[in-house]
Amino acid sequence: MKKRDRDAKLKVAVVGASGYAGLELLRILAGHPSARVVLATSDSLAGKKARDVFPHLAPLPELTFRPHGAAAEFGAADVFFTALPHGESFPLIEPLLRSARVIDLSADYRLKNPADYEKWYGFRHPLPALLERSVYGLTEMNRDAVRKAALVANPGCYPTGALLAIAPLANLKGLKTAEFIVDAKSGYTGAGRKREERLLLAEARNEFTAYRVTRHQHCAELLQEAARIFGRRTRIAFTPHLAPVSRGILSTVYARVRKPDEDHAREAFAAFYRGEPFVRVCARGEVPGVRDVAGTNVCSIGVFADADNSLLKIITAIDNLGKGAAGQAVHNMNLMFGLDETAGLNLPGFVP
Amino acid sequence: MKKRDRDAKLKVAVVGASGYAGLELLRILAGHPSARVVLATSDSLAGKKARDVFPHLAPLPELTFRPHGAAAEFGAADVFFTALPHGESFPLIEPLLRSARVIDLSADYRLKNPADYEKWYGFRHPLPALLERSVYGLTEMNRDAVRKAALVANPGCYPTGALLAIAPLANLKGLKTAEFIVDAKSGYTGAGRKREERLLLAEARNEFTAYRVTRHQHCAELLQEAARIFGRRTRIAFTPHLAPVSRGILSTVYARVRKPDEDHAREAFAAFYRGEPFVRVCARGEVPGVRDVAGTNVCSIGVFADADNSLLKIITAIDNLGKGAAGQAVHNMNLMFGLDETAGLNLPGFVP
Amino acid sequence: MKKRDRDAKLKVAVVGASGYAGLELLRILAGHPSARVVLATSDSLAGKKARDVFPHLAPLPELTFRPHGAAAEFGAADVFFTALPHGESFPLIEPLLRSARVIDLSADYRLKNPADYEKWYGFRHPLPALLERSVYGLTEMNRDAVRKAALVANPGCYPTGALLAIAPLANLKGLKTAEFIVDAKSGYTGAGRKREERLLLAEARNEFTAYRVTRHQHCAELLQEAARIFGRRTRIAFTPHLAPVSRGILSTVYARVRKPDEDHAREAFAAFYRGEPFVRVCARGEVPGVRDVAGTNVCSIGVFADADNSLLKIITAIDNLGKGAAGQAVHNMNLMFGLDETAGLNLPGFVP
Amino acid sequence: MKKRDRDAKLKVAVVGASGYAGLELLRILAGHPSARVVLATSDSLAGKKARDVFPHLAPLPELTFRPHGAAAEFGAADVFFTALPHGESFPLIEPLLRSARVIDLSADYRLKNPADYEKWYGFRHPLPALLERSVYGLTEMNRDAVRKAALVANPGCYPTGALLAIAPLANLKGLKTAEFIVDAKSGYTGAGRKREERLLLAEARNEFTAYRVTRHQHCAELLQEAARIFGRRTRIAFTPHLAPVSRGILSTVYARVRKPDEDHAREAFAAFYRGEPFVRVCARGEVPGVRDVAGTNVCSIGVFADADNSLLKIITAIDNLGKGAAGQAVHNMNLMFGLDETAGLNLPGFVP
Repeated sequence: MKKRDRDAKLKVAVVGASGYAGLELLRILAGHPSARVVLATSDSLAGKKARDVFPHLAPLPELTFRPHGAAAEFGAADVFFTALPHGESFPLIEPLLRSARVIDLSADYRLKNPADYEKWYGFRHPLPALLERSVYGLTEMNRDAVRKAALVANPGCYPTGALLAIAPLANLKGLKTAEFIVDAKSGYTGAGRKREERLLLAEARNEFTAYRVTRHQHCAELLQEAARIFGRRTRIAFTPHLAPVSRGILSTVYARVRKPDEDHAREAFAAFYRGEPFVRVCARGEVPGVRDVAGTNVCSIGVFADADNSLLKIITAIDNLGKGAAGQAVHNMNLMFGLDETAGLNLPGFVP
Repeated sequence: MKKRDRDAKLKVAVVGASGYAGLELLRILAGHPSARVVLATSDSLAGKKARDVFPHLAPLPELTFRPHGAAAEFGAADVFFTALPHGESFPLIEPLLRSARVIDLSADYRLKNPADYEKWYGFRHPLPALLERSVYGLTEMNRDAVRKAALVANPGCYPTGALLAIAPLANLKGLKTAEFIVDAKSGYTGAGRKREERLLLAEARNEFTAYRVTRHQHCAELLQEAARIFGRRTRIAFTPHLAPVSRGILSTVYARVRKPDEDHAREAFAAFYRGEPFVRVCARGEVPGVRDVAGTNVCSIGVFADADNSLLKIITAIDNLGKGAAGQAVHNMNLMFGLDETAGLNLPGFVP
Repeated sequence: MKKRDRDAKLKVAVVGASGYAGLELLRILAGHPSARVVLATSDSLAGKKARDVFPHLAPLPELTFRPHGAAAEFGAADVFFTALPHGESFPLIEPLLRSARVIDLSADYRLKNPADYEKWYGFRHPLPALLERSVYGLTEMNRDAVRKAALVANPGCYPTGALLAIAPLANLKGLKTAEFIVDAKSGYTGAGRKREERLLLAEARNEFTAYRVTRHQHCAELLQEAARIFGRRTRIAFTPHLAPVSRGILSTVYARVRKPDEDHAREAFAAFYRGEPFVRVCARGEVPGVRDVAGTNVCSIGVFADADNSLLKIITAIDNLGKGAAGQAVHNMNLMFGLDETAGLNLPGFVP
Repeated sequence: MKKRDRDAKLKVAVVGASGYAGLELLRILAGHPSARVVLATSDSLAGKKARDVFPHLAPLPELTFRPHGAAAEFGAADVFFTALPHGESFPLIEPLLRSARVIDLSADYRLKNPADYEKWYGFRHPLPALLERSVYGLTEMNRDAVRKAALVANPGCYPTGALLAIAPLANLKGLKTAEFIVDAKSGYTGAGRKREERLLLAEARNEFTAYRVTRHQHCAELLQEAARIFGRRTRIAFTPHLAPVSRGILSTVYARVRKPDEDHAREAFAAFYRGEPFVRVCARGEVPGVRDVAGTNVCSIGVFADADNSLLKIITAIDNLGKGAAGQAVHNMNLMFGLDETAGLNLPGFVP
């Protein structure tokens, strides 16, 4: 890994820059005080100026897309964000790691057990050695490991919202069992920019529905990381839904506890996340919503006790493209390079 | 109660006709082959022609709103739909019942125990004797009682979606306990036409959130009716959410079962609802959504087994203004007057 | 053309039944008192039950899609609605016309001059003789010709909204020139169910934009029909826009007049459309909107005078799938077969 | 006016900070490198922390709302943004101007002729002397005057979009008359956070309509400023519409020209706005849309020739809260205090 002049700006490459997560990386990095985008790749848009195709990127007036292949020959970046579809970064990843650090936004390096890729994603992982090296970049849980990582596997959007709800429960007095129900609701950017009929505005704007009700591939990392946090196997029932908003995941999590005490539980959450710059535990009576975190790296958490049912209800709201993807990735970059953790991320949200 | 010429059209009055449920009653009744709207009341719009204020009601060209008070003097109707805000029908209800049958769409006659009104709604019920006479109009469960009822308490929108999901579980082999989690998502017509900031388009269109997370007044009837169906006390944790669609409630219900078997459970649901004209059990792989039931009286049900978590997930979709209010009310009217059950309700939904 | 028993229901076939216009035809015909759908074709869904793929079509429980080719062999229908993409009905149309009447919802038989197809659509029309036989089915303008037509070319959605605004101006005193500006705004069903990136919910829900600003193919029929109505050549500047609603076209039309008098102009419009069951001239102060006509065959018209600018502003609202497609097509069918004009079309709109 | 240390940050007060324009000012100022918010007033939220009421303002952790009255006693600010409803700043404005400069976002100081307030707003202006002193802050037109102004009247959202479309036409060869049609479409934040029925999500999300079709108060400033730009009286027909998006105004402007030449006109626009940091003239074939400018201070302009109709069509897109309000206001502030014009405003837009 190259030495880097601490005063110079970090040189950043975004591989797969024209998908929703890639665009959000560019949007955040455009205002980052200590980083500079030196490469953005997109096979379909190669040769085009970013601002011509995406006028909202006017603050990056000189950026021109190059083909993905350019990443491999590219030696000048300190860090690569790889935001390619699952499976497509395999040919690139080892060359990149020779000269730089990598933050990957796909699922390709998140699972520790290669067999899980066969079970959940249906393919044999070609680079199992990398799975040992990669660090699961749920920043609040793995801060120290992220600092030293050469390869960070940035968490999935659903697991981010769910794990931040579940983690403080591990040591909560009164938890009956490590069994949770996660009822998650996502906006449509979570489905990516796929040309599918069900994603058309005319099909989707009056729709609210669930999908992959019994088996979503994000369960794999959810279970893996929950087991690490709890120090034992957990059971998590997960149901993803789609709501006709652009951004946001609201996760409503149910946990069985003996004599649930809302104030006590809220304080436990507040204590657990004390000092975290991007986790906000709501005051009594406030319910998190996806609107207030849109465009930010914030996870907003509400803690509620349902005494009649011996349940805690934990509700988290994140921006699936922010804390659930690009925001968390930049947070990880900041840690990896010893920058101020909040650099470039202390952005007001987009309301109304 | 008056005799009615079986060949003549039923004379119908809608009290509180300018709210969302009232308007939907007019929309349905406009096409009902055996009913005729003879009175529609609205204090705020009294004296105005319905079609002038609501151009979509053009098929009722002669209808003019009258003040609510007109209902009390009105002797010519066979049936009154009362769709006033909770608490406002009390002065009217007894005079109306002297000469006609009543289907009330508020919560005012749903709870059997007067004490529940103090607990859940915060007022002392002024007419407790009516609570004994009223029939809870969840049509599929109480068909025979509805037929003979003078006063039907039309179910709330959330309880309708939840109870139709839960009822078939009462006799399902393998159910561990009568404990359920109901994670419900509603469109904004469910909040009524209140002039509240949070309901403005500019506030709500990018929002997805929960509300009344630990205590929603609909829990009262939910628990009451579930106890009746199960023959014992049940526990139901209920979390309502708001999604930026106009119509629809999607209820995702979690039930703990031993060795969940999806096909077996689906067949049990299909058997339970066999012959029901307005319940549709989805085929394997199909997930219900609110779009396909918008504008209809249909409840669409999906049954899913999550073996890893010993759960059945039951998902129901209804139109909160249709099956969750006006549609079910008309269904009850058809039963009460010996009409074809589906009269006026066999409508295609509004897609796309 | 076959004789038809006047008491029997009309036998109707919908060719191209799974597109948005085709689905709307099925939705309307499901409730038509004098018509019965005997064939619905869709190559992609052939063999599937309509209600399984489109649950909102539950009132057509027996309908099964057949391939388009089935139409050609199909002799039992009295009338065929052809709702195929432009150009695809050519092989079918002549066989169908041998035994039945046809209402075509594409642009293929709307233009009288074959050269216009080369100019506006870029192809040589293979059946120019049919262009002479076809009747442009703007019902209010061509009622008598429609009655006798074997082949009706159902108007485009944009031309319907624009021509109904312009037609009454032909004899209006004070009109300076037959030059008009039509600024039209359409919902996304107008773009059909194409799998294009720009039509995705995540792309479109925050967007409002124009398209084909200087040349939209609908100009061809707009100019052709306006010339017929005015008895001379007119000039019409047309700008289509897309708004993130599902249904509806709002057309704001500007016409230069000497001393515009709003009441006089409104009365002229009211007189022009007197007796028309599906045109509604708004009262003073009321502005038409697309919501109130959604799901109906109604065209709502507002007439406004801008004295400072010597302009009349005419605003029309239609449902692009209703009056702009399927509703008008069924209206034409009713005329062609001597049915009550409003049969099956006197439907309340879908509000809220 | 106080001297200010050029190295210190500008001290900024926002009076009326909880309306949509006020919130957008806070959002922008939170990231401004040379300004610091020292006061934010809101009568309804006085005493509350901004971040508690508006979680998206987390980057302003210490800001607490104070009552409007606090502004009058407040001597420490260099500049006041007054974003109160029309008419409410009158008691405050003179005291503020004694010690600071003011940028007012209402219409109260935009019109030069006091009689226009009686004609268009229905009240007698109490401070006519201020009308002479105020500078109409359409930045691109009045840059030099803004620099020296003590009181800037920030333009209305509609006039901003319309005037930027019209201004370059003043010297365009071939313009027939200074008569224009402006067909404008706005999102719902343009209506403010009023608790009106028509603004509810359930009422508005399927609606597209026009309003104040013949007389919108923004016409007054539109005509006043167009006359200044053209050096003579112009005629502008203006029709505002509401589309169910949150932010954005799309203005479609029609101008009659002899032999319209699109490339020539586009080049004239590009020349006119050369060097302007926040005006973007689209390349041939690109159509501006409101999405790409949401959250920015950019005005995107498309120029199109309609030769058949002897028209130029100019389409502008702005964010009504950005370039149409808070963005332009900060731009003016930058000019008034000799800061980099783009300071705090070089933000990427909010896509998707």
